[in-house]
Amino acid sequence: MPAWKALNGTPEADGFRMPPEFAPHAGCWLLWPERPDNWRAGAIPVQAAFIQLVAAIARFEPVTVGVSPRQQRAARAALSGYARVVVVPNDDCWVRDTGPTFVVDGRGGRRAVDWRFNAWGGVYERHARDDRVAGMIAATEGAPRYRAPLVMEGGSFHVDGEGTVLVTEQCLLNPNRNPRLDRADIALYLHRYLGVRQIVWLGKGVVNDETSGHIDNLACFVRPGEVLLTWCDNRRDPQYRVSRDAWARLREARDARGRRFRVHRLPSPPPLHMTRAESRGILRRPGIRALRAGHRLAGSYVNCYLANGAVIAPLLGASTDEAALHALARAFPRRRVVGVPSREFLLGGGNIHCLTQQVPAV
Amino acid sequence: MPAWKALNGTPEADGFRMPPEFAPHAGCWLLWPERPDNWRAGAIPVQAAFIQLVAAIARFEPVTVGVSPRQQRAARAALSGYARVVVVPNDDCWVRDTGPTFVVDGRGGRRAVDWRFNAWGGVYERHARDDRVAGMIAATEGAPRYRAPLVMEGGSFHVDGEGTVLVTEQCLLNPNRNPRLDRADIALYLHRYLGVRQIVWLGKGVVNDETSGHIDNLACFVRPGEVLLTWCDNRRDPQYRVSRDAWARLREARDARGRRFRVHRLPSPPPLHMTRAESRGILRRPGIRALRAGHRLAGSYVNCYLANGAVIAPLLGASTDEAALHALARAFPRRRVVGVPSREFLLGGGNIHCLTQQVPAV
Repeated sequence: MPAWKALNGTPEADGFRMPPEFAPHAGCWLLWPERPDNWRAGAIPVQAAFIQLVAAIARFEPVTVGVSPRQQRAARAALSGYARVVVVPNDDCWVRDTGPTFVVDGRGGRRAVDWRFNAWGGVYERHARDDRVAGMIAATEGAPRYRAPLVMEGGSFHVDGEGTVLVTEQCLLNPNRNPRLDRADIALYLHRYLGVRQIVWLGKGVVNDETSGHIDNLACFVRPGEVLLTWCDNRRDPQYRVSRDAWARLREARDARGRRFRVHRLPSPPPLHMTRAESRGILRRPGIRALRAGHRLAGSYVNCYLANGAVIAPLLGASTDEAALHALARAFPRRRVVGVPSREFLLGGGNIHCLTQQVPAV
Repeated sequence: MPAWKALNGTPEADGFRMPPEFAPHAGCWLLWPERPDNWRAGAIPVQAAFIQLVAAIARFEPVTVGVSPRQQRAARAALSGYARVVVVPNDDCWVRDTGPTFVVDGRGGRRAVDWRFNAWGGVYERHARDDRVAGMIAATEGAPRYRAPLVMEGGSFHVDGEGTVLVTEQCLLNPNRNPRLDRADIALYLHRYLGVRQIVWLGKGVVNDETSGHIDNLACFVRPGEVLLTWCDNRRDPQYRVSRDAWARLREARDARGRRFRVHRLPSPPPLHMTRAESRGILRRPGIRALRAGHRLAGSYVNCYLANGAVIAPLLGASTDEAALHALARAFPRRRVVGVPSREFLLGGGNIHCLTQQVPAV
């Protein structure tokens, strides 16, 4: 069937499921950052950081970068030698959330789940192009596409590949996403579209996370049965309570195979704030919630990307950077840990995991 | 050691655990209702219902009724032949919440856990006598006593006897109880004082439940692996969402042995309200939150008591009474289901389970 037509049925019914990020990839997608009302100084600083990120990932797996028609020349020149560059009209570069979720059947089949997108419950008003990103990427990859009937973003779930999905209540049960769906409905859709059997619900996401608490900034799977959790020892930091609550829930939970979790604690950075100088460079436009000076940034080292044989980890320019890289190296002893300066990404509201979307190997 | 002294250590460390309500009992405790600022018409109507309740339980197991010094004669006369009557000064009759939680070691030992009591987060101001009820009952039963260092009520947890406890977040994480304890702390205390290994967290309790959502009005164990849940099919009733959420959580949960739950749905009554006539008879006093006319009552058939070989079930005077008794009979095929008219109890803010406290057999 033509790739632009949506499939009937659901991945689960058709024998497809989402493989975990730590499984082998065929490649990785990113989108070129450019909007001057989210990225400061005409997006020049973030583009410099982005090129470095693409170069880091390209050492481990093939990279494709989608770019708007207007900047395709600039992107092609900057990324030459690192990535395939294709035109994908978009409203911003967060392909983790606007891109497809790939599912596989273990027999060579790869398909795409195309969720509804509403800009994280309304962070910006116009998001029609972003809502078409998943379909365009699926078509480029030749992957037949399921159109899922609910608002969801790729950053709001992590799977272990053995039937378990990790999510937060703050995000998935937020009335800004699917006000008519309750916990039972959401659970049913996760089962059907990700092919999971067990949902592990954490509570709130990282303090001040604009996504209403995406899991991918709070916790991720290291491998089945093991979870990496951003951890804060400072009782005066509101992140302390968030991480404690997540830890308590993880300790009580079991995965789809009935196992208890081993929880690795990854230090969270001290509170990081947008400076006045950083804020000044952002173009202010109505209908867009750009961050302002003094805003606490939702920094977390969990927001990393697992490329083939590597962990591409954010360097936040904080005193905790070194300890975080060491903790990642301990959690992933068989992967190279590569740090990429990420403050520019954080200023735009996300980080490395939000900027990437893996295409699983088949 | 003398019974009035508290033990050091914790039940878990000493090899004790709470047996489930469905295990054999040595007997049952209740407290005589009398306060005219909670019970209408000088507590005469509720005392009539209470005598009927005691008579029903006494058919199945020995009953002890605690009574304030002032009404001991009246209580002795009324309960003669049904119950042993002993003086236990108290602020009200909710022995499920003010009484001890008995724990056993499986080798003939029986001890008591004495929780802190703050009148469900402040429903009434003076509760010093209620806070001493558990100690007095423990002493009467000759049970050495642990003084647990947190506010908790017996109605806020149900155990399956195999390591699982069922609770609600609304109650156990409510800042009106233990504002300095978080989910991890509460979990630790449940492990230590009930001897459980797995906590199953439901969300909110029954709509308008004055206890901040006690589990014993929402759900209970039928046997290990099986839960009875109050269920509402009317989408316009706010109870619909509460029950759906609980159902979704139960379906995702596993018990301490790794089992999924079988969930029995027990019909919830239609919305029941206090009438003007019922409200008029309550003595109004400052510092006491008595219910008023028009208040929706938190009726639920789950609020029953499992006596030896019986289910003592509330009759709410609603169209659902018969269906509820049938559903209970199906869930408990080996127990006699005995209905007791319970509207008077409900007017005071609780029901049969709240009025009873089992003493496990050893």
